[in-house]
Amino acid sequence: MKTRILFSLLCLLTFSTSKAQSDSITVRRIYDIALTQGECYENLRVLCKQVGHRLSGSAQAEKAVVWGKQTMEKAGFDQVWLQDVMVPKWVRGKEKGSLLLSKNPKLKDGNPVSATLKITALGGSVGTNGPITGEVIEVNDFDELKRLGTENIKGKIVFFNRPFDPTFIQTFKAYGHCVNQRVQGASEAAKFGAKAVIVRSMAHGHGDHPHTGSIHYEDSLKKIPAAAVSTVMADKISDELKQGRKVSVTLEMDCKVFPDVLSHNVIGELKGSEFPDRIITIGGHLDSWDIGEGAHDDGAGCVQSIEVLRLFKSLGIRPRHTLRAVLFMNEENGLRGGKKYADEAERKGEIHVAGLESDRGGFAPRGFTIEGNEQQIAWLRSLNPLLKPYDLHFFEPGGSGADIGPLKKKFSNIVLFGFIPDSQRYFDHHHAETDVFETVNKRELELGAAAMATLIYLIDRNLL
Amino acid sequence: MKTRILFSLLCLLTFSTSKAQSDSITVRRIYDIALTQGECYENLRVLCKQVGHRLSGSAQAEKAVVWGKQTMEKAGFDQVWLQDVMVPKWVRGKEKGSLLLSKNPKLKDGNPVSATLKITALGGSVGTNGPITGEVIEVNDFDELKRLGTENIKGKIVFFNRPFDPTFIQTFKAYGHCVNQRVQGASEAAKFGAKAVIVRSMAHGHGDHPHTGSIHYEDSLKKIPAAAVSTVMADKISDELKQGRKVSVTLEMDCKVFPDVLSHNVIGELKGSEFPDRIITIGGHLDSWDIGEGAHDDGAGCVQSIEVLRLFKSLGIRPRHTLRAVLFMNEENGLRGGKKYADEAERKGEIHVAGLESDRGGFAPRGFTIEGNEQQIAWLRSLNPLLKPYDLHFFEPGGSGADIGPLKKKFSNIVLFGFIPDSQRYFDHHHAETDVFETVNKRELELGAAAMATLIYLIDRNLL
Repeated sequence: MKTRILFSLLCLLTFSTSKAQSDSITVRRIYDIALTQGECYENLRVLCKQVGHRLSGSAQAEKAVVWGKQTMEKAGFDQVWLQDVMVPKWVRGKEKGSLLLSKNPKLKDGNPVSATLKITALGGSVGTNGPITGEVIEVNDFDELKRLGTENIKGKIVFFNRPFDPTFIQTFKAYGHCVNQRVQGASEAAKFGAKAVIVRSMAHGHGDHPHTGSIHYEDSLKKIPAAAVSTVMADKISDELKQGRKVSVTLEMDCKVFPDVLSHNVIGELKGSEFPDRIITIGGHLDSWDIGEGAHDDGAGCVQSIEVLRLFKSLGIRPRHTLRAVLFMNEENGLRGGKKYADEAERKGEIHVAGLESDRGGFAPRGFTIEGNEQQIAWLRSLNPLLKPYDLHFFEPGGSGADIGPLKKKFSNIVLFGFIPDSQRYFDHHHAETDVFETVNKRELELGAAAMATLIYLIDRNLL
Repeated sequence: MKTRILFSLLCLLTFSTSKAQSDSITVRRIYDIALTQGECYENLRVLCKQVGHRLSGSAQAEKAVVWGKQTMEKAGFDQVWLQDVMVPKWVRGKEKGSLLLSKNPKLKDGNPVSATLKITALGGSVGTNGPITGEVIEVNDFDELKRLGTENIKGKIVFFNRPFDPTFIQTFKAYGHCVNQRVQGASEAAKFGAKAVIVRSMAHGHGDHPHTGSIHYEDSLKKIPAAAVSTVMADKISDELKQGRKVSVTLEMDCKVFPDVLSHNVIGELKGSEFPDRIITIGGHLDSWDIGEGAHDDGAGCVQSIEVLRLFKSLGIRPRHTLRAVLFMNEENGLRGGKKYADEAERKGEIHVAGLESDRGGFAPRGFTIEGNEQQIAWLRSLNPLLKPYDLHFFEPGGSGADIGPLKKKFSNIVLFGFIPDSQRYFDHHHAETDVFETVNKRELELGAAAMATLIYLIDRNLL
């Protein structure tokens, strides 16, 4: 069902002075309580330290579901429930890698050198079925792979090494320009008979820990193992190859796909006073990769989404529309939670008018993106004077979030927003063992929750 | 001598299209080189790891002076020199603290408890001359101290415990509302016969490390010892007092003031092509407190100031005015470097037209403050469209920096700017053992240097 909702936003220019003043006072109250009696940081600590990482289909993911439900119930939402979602189950198992460098042809007395290679299987990779060894061939993009062709690739381990472009001011753009190596690299290399792939971690800078993330196998092609190596090791391997050394890598990965299992989205609701049947969704994703603690990705978005509703309750603000905090399952390797949520919304004949997602880390807020029409974009931009004192300045059209994205296909008039924190440190920790609670700053997380609650308050008041 | 310089800034509104385009291209080039071939991060690593902390008057401070001179010479500036400055020399020596809690009156079986109290002498404090012990009395402000009066204060150790107000969005405002406890607390408490003071660290949140910082003794009052305790310990002591326990503290601090010693500002220059006698100063301070590594405060500002000139050189941009990178000595406990620089500028009949200081940490840039007239403020604001793609959005009147401040008194028409990075994490590390290189993010530091170089480029081009 595609519903057609008349969605019209009052421009701040037409606000009466008293309304603008009242908004300004409420925004200040939201920030005051978020910064003095905020609970999102402690909630994140519990999620990270008592649950830990929580890949879809794992026991920890179900522990996180219980945590999410209990946390929302404790916050006293009108209704809290679980929504069934069947999710993929991929298990990493044991993994190890090693490196063999041939004698350096430029050195008279050089010897072959072997060393441990720290690897992280990419999410969804097949296992190696015992150790596999292959000579490494470096490529920077799929065109180069094609040019080299089967004669150069067959039987080798392809090493995708295109680095992040540091000149993009927003780090997500750099990610966008590299991530096809990780997602499609294995299938692209398989076309030319590669034995496996290793991929430079999707990160700026020089970390010594590899970053995982999902891959996509094309059904028609052979599934070959895929692992990430750290940016430091990627540079080292590349240097050795440039010096004319042969580099061989041995990979041993036990990872395996199991049949889908039952999991859940966690949903909590505050009923709207005027339009209880019109729903505004605020969400993040509950699953994380299976290394680190999923603190920024996306524990932060989960606890902030819960905090938005909790702030309404604490302040005694009864929303006009129904507000839902949704902890989506399986964003990382399937998006099943986001799809199921939208499917169920359609099946039940719900009316969804707006959505906001936080899935870019718990860093200092900058503003919001919007997927909406010109009038809605103008409305978002008109918030600048009201929100400038809170260091918010970014109000631009742009993608909202993966989990709320499927709502668009079901509700053509929905307006979707993405929370935009500062992006500079995000890829230091993204999908890596360093994405732990300690890298989240309490004030930054709380300021994000306050910014989100403020936007939702303004949407709720101005959505007709 | 007060010079009167006709300072007029072209408004971007009047820019010809070609000029705006050329500016836009140059800004992009500045960012590209700062982010791909930047040297400030490596320079900071050397300063932090090979020199370390560097309090005025210490051997490390002189090592830092040598580092600064060599770094500027290596960068190939037109001229590099040291400017003599006599600086205070305060030496911390050994320090230790302990805590004795009386039997808890609310518990039947409670016992007295003693524990180590981690302290950091406040900079400039007198020593204790052997251990001193006193009962702790908590106050939150000087009015409370007055109300308690000599009868309650005499012979005790006053504990200043007013915390940062988390509702200030900008953390520097929270600092501004607390720091008088640290600076004037000892003298205020001495008026009522206190034996010593301990001060809650100037920080948000709950760290277990104390933060140092300068104090000011009034000449007419007795100088009593002053030390900081961590926010965690401050809360603990306060809780114990609220429970009715008596808390005694023993302090043993060997700190001592020595006669002033010779030190230096480090100055590097690129000569102006059109107005070589008109000077634009870009600076940070080279000294730091004697714990941690002075990475954010203010190693970051030093390496960024050097980087600004280096970027001009790398890009082959010859400035119209003379640009000076200045590493000021003794900002933390005397400001002698800033004062001497301004005095010498006046004495030599120099003409100073603008200044920019970076002393708020090496975090992601937000924008700039300005101390100037309305036309100059309007000009800074007019940069918004040009700089928005670089995530810069804050262009407001406000204080520039302590070190360049003294130039104002000498050059009435000078326009001064402060570099404003994100402030949320700054006081986690300010004046503390955690202010180390590892807390600085490479991209954030480089983006700051690029933002500063961009502003200087635009000032240099538009200053008539």
